Amino acid sequence: MLETDYMELAIQMAAKTKGQTVPNPVVGCVIVKDSEIVGLGAHLKAGDPHAERHALAMAGEKAKEAVMYVTLEPCSHYGKTPPCADAIIEAGISKVFIASLDPNPKVSGKGITKLKQAGIVVETGTHKAEADALNKEFFHFIRTSKPYVTLKTASSIDGKIATSSGESQWITGEEARKDGHRLRHENDAILVGVETIIQDNPMLTARLSNGGHHPIRIILDSTLRIPLTSHVVTDTQADTWVVTTNRASKEAREALEKTGVTIFTVAGDTIKITEILTIIGKQQVSSLLVEGGGTVNDSFLRAGEFQCLIKYMAPMIIGGEQARSSFSGKGFSNLSDVPRLELVNMELIGQDVKFVFHKREE
Amino acid sequence: MLETDYMELAIQMAAKTKGQTVPNPVVGCVIVKDSEIVGLGAHLKAGDPHAERHALAMAGEKAKEAVMYVTLEPCSHYGKTPPCADAIIEAGISKVFIASLDPNPKVSGKGITKLKQAGIVVETGTHKAEADALNKEFFHFIRTSKPYVTLKTASSIDGKIATSSGESQWITGEEARKDGHRLRHENDAILVGVETIIQDNPMLTARLSNGGHHPIRIILDSTLRIPLTSHVVTDTQADTWVVTTNRASKEAREALEKTGVTIFTVAGDTIKITEILTIIGKQQVSSLLVEGGGTVNDSFLRAGEFQCLIKYMAPMIIGGEQARSSFSGKGFSNLSDVPRLELVNMELIGQDVKFVFHKREE
Amino acid sequence: MLETDYMELAIQMAAKTKGQTVPNPVVGCVIVKDSEIVGLGAHLKAGDPHAERHALAMAGEKAKEAVMYVTLEPCSHYGKTPPCADAIIEAGISKVFIASLDPNPKVSGKGITKLKQAGIVVETGTHKAEADALNKEFFHFIRTSKPYVTLKTASSIDGKIATSSGESQWITGEEARKDGHRLRHENDAILVGVETIIQDNPMLTARLSNGGHHPIRIILDSTLRIPLTSHVVTDTQADTWVVTTNRASKEAREALEKTGVTIFTVAGDTIKITEILTIIGKQQVSSLLVEGGGTVNDSFLRAGEFQCLIKYMAPMIIGGEQARSSFSGKGFSNLSDVPRLELVNMELIGQDVKFVFHKREE
Amino acid sequence: MLETDYMELAIQMAAKTKGQTVPNPVVGCVIVKDSEIVGLGAHLKAGDPHAERHALAMAGEKAKEAVMYVTLEPCSHYGKTPPCADAIIEAGISKVFIASLDPNPKVSGKGITKLKQAGIVVETGTHKAEADALNKEFFHFIRTSKPYVTLKTASSIDGKIATSSGESQWITGEEARKDGHRLRHENDAILVGVETIIQDNPMLTARLSNGGHHPIRIILDSTLRIPLTSHVVTDTQADTWVVTTNRASKEAREALEKTGVTIFTVAGDTIKITEILTIIGKQQVSSLLVEGGGTVNDSFLRAGEFQCLIKYMAPMIIGGEQARSSFSGKGFSNLSDVPRLELVNMELIGQDVKFVFHKREE
Ligand SMILES: [Zn+2]
Ligand SMILES: [Zn+2]
Ligand SMILES: [Zn+2]
Ligand SMILES: [Zn+2]
Repeated sequence: MLETDYMELAIQMAAKTKGQTVPNPVVGCVIVKDSEIVGLGAHLKAGDPHAERHALAMAGEKAKEAVMYVTLEPCSHYGKTPPCADAIIEAGISKVFIASLDPNPKVSGKGITKLKQAGIVVETGTHKAEADALNKEFFHFIRTSKPYVTLKTASSIDGKIATSSGESQWITGEEARKDGHRLRHENDAILVGVETIIQDNPMLTARLSNGGHHPIRIILDSTLRIPLTSHVVTDTQADTWVVTTNRASKEAREALEKTGVTIFTVAGDTIKITEILTIIGKQQVSSLLVEGGGTVNDSFLRAGEFQCLIKYMAPMIIGGEQARSSFSGKGFSNLSDVPRLELVNMELIGQDVKFVFHKREE
Repeated sequence: MLETDYMELAIQMAAKTKGQTVPNPVVGCVIVKDSEIVGLGAHLKAGDPHAERHALAMAGEKAKEAVMYVTLEPCSHYGKTPPCADAIIEAGISKVFIASLDPNPKVSGKGITKLKQAGIVVETGTHKAEADALNKEFFHFIRTSKPYVTLKTASSIDGKIATSSGESQWITGEEARKDGHRLRHENDAILVGVETIIQDNPMLTARLSNGGHHPIRIILDSTLRIPLTSHVVTDTQADTWVVTTNRASKEAREALEKTGVTIFTVAGDTIKITEILTIIGKQQVSSLLVEGGGTVNDSFLRAGEFQCLIKYMAPMIIGGEQARSSFSGKGFSNLSDVPRLELVNMELIGQDVKFVFHKREE
Repeated sequence: MLETDYMELAIQMAAKTKGQTVPNPVVGCVIVKDSEIVGLGAHLKAGDPHAERHALAMAGEKAKEAVMYVTLEPCSHYGKTPPCADAIIEAGISKVFIASLDPNPKVSGKGITKLKQAGIVVETGTHKAEADALNKEFFHFIRTSKPYVTLKTASSIDGKIATSSGESQWITGEEARKDGHRLRHENDAILVGVETIIQDNPMLTARLSNGGHHPIRIILDSTLRIPLTSHVVTDTQADTWVVTTNRASKEAREALEKTGVTIFTVAGDTIKITEILTIIGKQQVSSLLVEGGGTVNDSFLRAGEFQCLIKYMAPMIIGGEQARSSFSGKGFSNLSDVPRLELVNMELIGQDVKFVFHKREE
Repeated sequence: MLETDYMELAIQMAAKTKGQTVPNPVVGCVIVKDSEIVGLGAHLKAGDPHAERHALAMAGEKAKEAVMYVTLEPCSHYGKTPPCADAIIEAGISKVFIASLDPNPKVSGKGITKLKQAGIVVETGTHKAEADALNKEFFHFIRTSKPYVTLKTASSIDGKIATSSGESQWITGEEARKDGHRLRHENDAILVGVETIIQDNPMLTARLSNGGHHPIRIILDSTLRIPLTSHVVTDTQADTWVVTTNRASKEAREALEKTGVTIFTVAGDTIKITEILTIIGKQQVSSLLVEGGGTVNDSFLRAGEFQCLIKYMAPMIIGGEQARSSFSGKGFSNLSDVPRLELVNMELIGQDVKFVFHKREE
């Protein structure tokens, strides 16, 4: 095996744990001695041992004089677990390859310094781009204290999410819907407007063949119109948070609180997107999937508060001025205000096309 | 060279003449003797010699005992030119490979029969699919007497063709617009609604670096609101046809007629898509490019009167309920009525994505 | 994540341990609960815990009701470690996906039966082809008790391994040579004729950037002409075995034995390939890389005793009747006796081409 | 259509006439007016009109003010036909795109100058690499006065062309053999040693499904051992030239001359490769396919007198020191003398692999 192979394996392990480590990043670790793998590890759950710890445990005595490949800079500070840098030093590792640096400016580079001071050779930069991409949500969160926002729409070629009579089921096919559940599984929270709850009464859970990690359900509802019998209120598989304003009545608030739903009240008459993101960021929500409808999508769009746009496009034209679009509301008056996107992926999923766009940084 | 090479060359020659042979099909022809090409030809212009004639002229005496590769069944009847089958027989060709059969049921197969009766060996079927695709518009026209209709839209990801304030220039990039001019070059006619003329005052010509073939400009205008100063009226690079109804005033009609524009008046108060297609089919328009706007596109969509949909998608979300969509009007109430499309091509053109869909045959 | 993702990860872990588990197969294992990975493991070294054990250790309590993905049927018998099937049952795993069945006919299927009897759901067949390919050497060894033999040559386009004057260094480039060291790393043993030792005095070790696993060095030497000062005798990084006959003198034998080299003496005057394979198979050598020279390669070829042929082809013609070829000796008189090969891979490595052929099964 | 499309079509037409224009280059020409093709032409046969003439004839009056795309600089001097530059000027062409310049240093650029002096806009360089590659043999011939030499071998993986007992039929499969006939069709002459005639008695013709152009057959035979009954002597489908020395007996020479074979006698006792090439170059042989056997191949190799090496490799090892190799004779003593090759293509042809190497220019 070559050096590049080991870091690739570390990355693959990290990639497969996407969605389960929140609010922590995904990390993979491989320990190698004499061209033989002696330890494998990934970070599996916040609070659980870090990837390095798992790999060191598997390696045991063989970690002495071995080489470690780890996708993220080892931690050097006391968190829920003692610092991995110390464990690496104790175990006698002689060289560490690191792909991504710690994105937290307060600690970035400190793990490396600690390792070097202990006489360990450190090499950085190999597979950095891939490792950074794996934790793009986490890195964004650490830098901004707001979650990484993905706008997701599933619509016809002409951007419709329902016919003029309101029919909206099965526009996209089964494979695209499955892929959509995977997105839910990978995000910490999912957000919709109360109108979507009233009209469609969705569960907003991640229904994968293996069960799936359900995101926290966040509902924007300025006046607390949410029905107490809606699935997101009665279902207990996942937490539900409702964001409202002082315009909501005291009665509605009390009734809703009894159901176990968490209520966040923002200042003012309307809900500002940036404010929501700040609030839920404080609650350690590092990634947010926005599933509309049109008005909510429009609010995120105009606020510029999104990093990624995913569109599933069904091969049909629905047409109709009255038919609901994936983006409604005000939109933009001037083309020069429209955010610039970059197409990063385009693939067929069943009969539908899936696009992934990133917002271009200005 | 192998047999397959010669038919490929014949197809390539035919492909490059796309757009210039209307209302005739494109045809390429290669004559081979002793593994050497002795004649090359393509049909270049309606009224001009057919592909076979050009190739026979180049071959001269060498056509004797030679093999001909031709993309379409040679004609056997007297048209603007005498039948090619006769010329092939006279020249002493010994064998003919034919890709596509004549789509006209009245004469299909007759060319082959004539050749065979003269003792020429005929082989059919090689490269049939490619050759048929080259003339799909022509074949459709011959079978239905109506033009092959391509709906073309250039819009944002969410299907908008302008912002809510009406800004619409430069949504798609330069390469996509160039490709759009190529579409015009390849179609016999282009159709828009009068609203597009009033709002955008377009030229509707094919502006390619080599000049381009300008399609006939067809404007749907029930009450003859078209400004006499609009480009499509004053410009003489291409013919302009206006389709109207009896609701148009006598004055408007007379004023417009003086400009040299051709007026077609349909029965009834509204313009029915199928009727238009029948009318212009009679005028030998075999392919029609529909460039909207939204209401016109919607009419073709709901009438099911299109064979191909081409969308250029710019990497931006414009949003806005009031922003114009590529398809407006009524649209469909029931998903089961929505025509099923098949994605036949998807490619990046500059920063935009170009999709080609074919309507599925039921 | 989808089911297919987890088995893929298990396969990737197994793939990266290729070469370090001899004489055991490579195995990877992933344990999943509620769409989250809770355990990862691979078999790292003969005598060490099996892949399932590592993964169960990492999962701990979370293994209860979890799903396991393992690339090879769990063992059900007592070997160096107690049976994994028992451990899986004890841990409370509810479902097991298995890619490859145990190739040993005596125990194949028994692990599955044991799991099923304990009420565990077992699914087999997913990713079977990839998992089988990973252990093709091991499976061959279990079925035949002889090692999987790969003939490796590095030669010019015309099959020469040296010029007529004997110059042979650097025919292939650095990348191809590196890849050759990887082959050594992945094989249990490497075999050459004594002539190669006398002429080139090679080390026959696996020199990778991470150190590498050195194969056992096997030298065919009927009369013990091997120099006591040759690298394979004096170097202690890897074991060296010399296969000889009764034609070797007592003195030579005694002198060689003193160096610590292991000597195997076969019956008869000549060394028969099949006999060697049987002998070293008994010593648990499950994969053998044959690096020639020409006469030794020819012996394996004519005996039909190889499964794979790897050729690195340098972009040059050396020519010369006297120049050494990768295959010399007798060769085949009749084309009908020549073994049929199947090209399974062809790729550029630096400026050279690498081919992998498998012998077709008759 | 775009400008690039027209030159591509011109190149495709030229490509398909490969092999039939000797000793002239292949040339394609397209004339375009208002984005419509009005003329197509290719050079079909030495002595026949040039590509430009054919295209101008098809275009007729439409050539006025049109644009010409031609793969090679139009000629400006009187050869077998009057200069094309004059014809282009007379026809009123307004702009000429040229891919390759004339390789003959005496006239290169003169055609362009003539066109420019007549006020025609000339653009050069578009598709130059592809157009140059089409005529690489011709360009080499013009520059060196010697033919472009392709060494062709069909052998086993280990470079054998026969077993030790001499069996050599059907080493490579049917598709590879067909491809080999195409090579013959595309070359002016084919060369073998007399040993090949004596042992295999080949026809050396191009047997394609369409008949094929048979190359001139050149036999190297120092002492005129060639049997008078061999196919290359008795068959009249193609010319046969025998190259011999003064060592040949007068009787043999006279007997052979009577058969109609052409005899070339070189000075000295042995045949020097460079001398042969000079002689046949004077006879306007611009491309030569060398089909061995081993000694002849070796002579070309050591003399460095080849530009291209094509190997068809059958998926088998034949082995055997006595088995004939594709290159025998002396070969090289020192690796530093071995010519450096560059792999330009590698593809599967049936079950065989076809390689195309070019000799690197020093
Ligand atoms: Zn840590
Ligand atoms: Zn005709
Ligand atoms: Zn086990
Ligand atoms: Zn000329």
